[in-house]
Amino acid sequence: MTAAMAETKKILLAHGGGGQLADELIRKTILARLGEKRPEGLEDSAKINLSSKSICFTTDSYVVKPLFFNGGDIGKLAVCGTLNDLAVAGAIPVALSLSFIIETGLEIDILEKIIDSIAKTARQNNVHIVTGDTKTVDAGQADKIFINTAGIGIRLKTADLGFDKIKPGDKIILSGSIGDHGITILSERQDIKFQTTLKSDCAAVSGLTSKILTGTTGVRFMRDPTRGGLAATLNEICRQTGLDIEIKQSQIPVKPAVQAAADMLGFDVLEIANEGKFVAVVSPACAEKVLRICKKHPLGKKAKIIGQITGASDTPLVEMETIIGGRRIVQMPYGRELPRIC
Amino acid sequence: MTAAMAETKKILLAHGGGGQLADELIRKTILARLGEKRPEGLEDSAKINLSSKSICFTTDSYVVKPLFFNGGDIGKLAVCGTLNDLAVAGAIPVALSLSFIIETGLEIDILEKIIDSIAKTARQNNVHIVTGDTKTVDAGQADKIFINTAGIGIRLKTADLGFDKIKPGDKIILSGSIGDHGITILSERQDIKFQTTLKSDCAAVSGLTSKILTGTTGVRFMRDPTRGGLAATLNEICRQTGLDIEIKQSQIPVKPAVQAAADMLGFDVLEIANEGKFVAVVSPACAEKVLRICKKHPLGKKAKIIGQITGASDTPLVEMETIIGGRRIVQMPYGRELPRIC
Repeated sequence: MTAAMAETKKILLAHGGGGQLADELIRKTILARLGEKRPEGLEDSAKINLSSKSICFTTDSYVVKPLFFNGGDIGKLAVCGTLNDLAVAGAIPVALSLSFIIETGLEIDILEKIIDSIAKTARQNNVHIVTGDTKTVDAGQADKIFINTAGIGIRLKTADLGFDKIKPGDKIILSGSIGDHGITILSERQDIKFQTTLKSDCAAVSGLTSKILTGTTGVRFMRDPTRGGLAATLNEICRQTGLDIEIKQSQIPVKPAVQAAADMLGFDVLEIANEGKFVAVVSPACAEKVLRICKKHPLGKKAKIIGQITGASDTPLVEMETIIGGRRIVQMPYGRELPRIC
Repeated sequence: MTAAMAETKKILLAHGGGGQLADELIRKTILARLGEKRPEGLEDSAKINLSSKSICFTTDSYVVKPLFFNGGDIGKLAVCGTLNDLAVAGAIPVALSLSFIIETGLEIDILEKIIDSIAKTARQNNVHIVTGDTKTVDAGQADKIFINTAGIGIRLKTADLGFDKIKPGDKIILSGSIGDHGITILSERQDIKFQTTLKSDCAAVSGLTSKILTGTTGVRFMRDPTRGGLAATLNEICRQTGLDIEIKQSQIPVKPAVQAAADMLGFDVLEIANEGKFVAVVSPACAEKVLRICKKHPLGKKAKIIGQITGASDTPLVEMETIIGGRRIVQMPYGRELPRIC
């Protein structure tokens, strides 16, 4: 740590100014902790030689509050979220960009913890952070730290996914329990304690999805049910395809603690964000095989066939058979005020 | 405009919630104005078929204040800045991502103006916005709007650029006047009026750099002198190569109004951010040809050879011969408190 860094344990405006302090922050705090080798020095653009010309490209900004929560933090989320977008598009992630907007006054040790978490998550998922940016803003002009990641992935040749591939009769597979991430964040934010510990499902599913896509044919479409939850994902499928969907509540895994917390807080778990799950629409012929691959993987042990695509309809709907045998329409969430869940 | 949108002219938290309101904002405000066709519907990852496996990948977040300034706005800047990072890396831009963090309460017509500017700038520069994200945060947790763009470009086969390619004797070309962007922003922020109008140089130089790189050999390195200005760019070259640099103040184009404003505000124009300029280090043999190509292009009319790489040194320095014939060391800016310049 140089004299200039030692003088402060907090982020200053000058850390985003393009001068010595910014340079020190980038070299000594960010690059050193990311452990990325950059033979080219610090050029603003990363040069990448891809193994294929057929890629996926995605981005997300992360504004989650609190920054640290049981099961993850904004850094882990920023890596996993973007990897998941690539994963459900049928791609193997290869490179991420990383951009910070930091409020002046943020403790540098908080930034270091976040960067360590980013580095660890990237390493675990075999992806490199290849380019980045750091901006600072005055106190009161941001809330501690916001992170953007963009990601590039190589499309699997075996993955030919899209809304247009979905057919009546296709099965809908959910990779595990729903509501864990959103309910954890909401409970921590409101400082509600439950007897059973709530934990975010924050994880990158790219390892599992690539196993499925290379091990089977017949996957039509995948999506990670983040903001808006399973309800938004299923309604989007419905609207894009014009096909009705039928699901069974009894087949949707929800942890009792998550259900209890959701009931107490007044939320429908179907509308709650997940950060380590995916929905796959698959041909009837390959559904059981996909399920078997899921169950062998740590992130898919609780996978279930939760329903199916039924037929075309003028007003396509998502219908759910409830546990007690009734039927309920699952609507597109209106957009409740659940800000900063991711 | 639907009933839900008509109810409000401001951004609500629910616009970032993943539900109906978010969906309307994305479809009707963002996608419609961007004019992008997306046959795949609204999948989170864009599928791209590249013309080459050799790419550049870059990102920047934009937090400029004010959002609108003479010569540009945060949207134009967010496109140009990322295109310029690709350009100076020797790449032809092909695709951008676009991510918004919006403070609740932002007037939707301001967002619309910004998106129109993004769309226009992307169109003019023949690049597509292919994927995006929108987050909302509570009032007071961001300052109106922050934008992140990431970009992918195809590396020109004729571009073999890097600090390691720079040799003693190489010439340093600056594509035009310095200080325009930063001084414009600082003056507008402090509401200082000058007799001559200050105007940001905000522009994408990718058209010009690709002409240079396809029209000549001998370009060793390029960089856009943004935050930290020309001083930071030259010092970075110095440090990365271990070579001394000599420049002539008389050859550095500075508009009189910019110089006057910089003097009045107490800034060194060498340290001021530019957003439509580049520095190229080129072999002595090709310097005149690069200059000729620049002068034929609207963004390079004022290009000059401002100096050269001299020799190796234990303590490599950037030295400037001043207009009155003195010599001055140009130091790496410490990181003055010039926040939110880009």
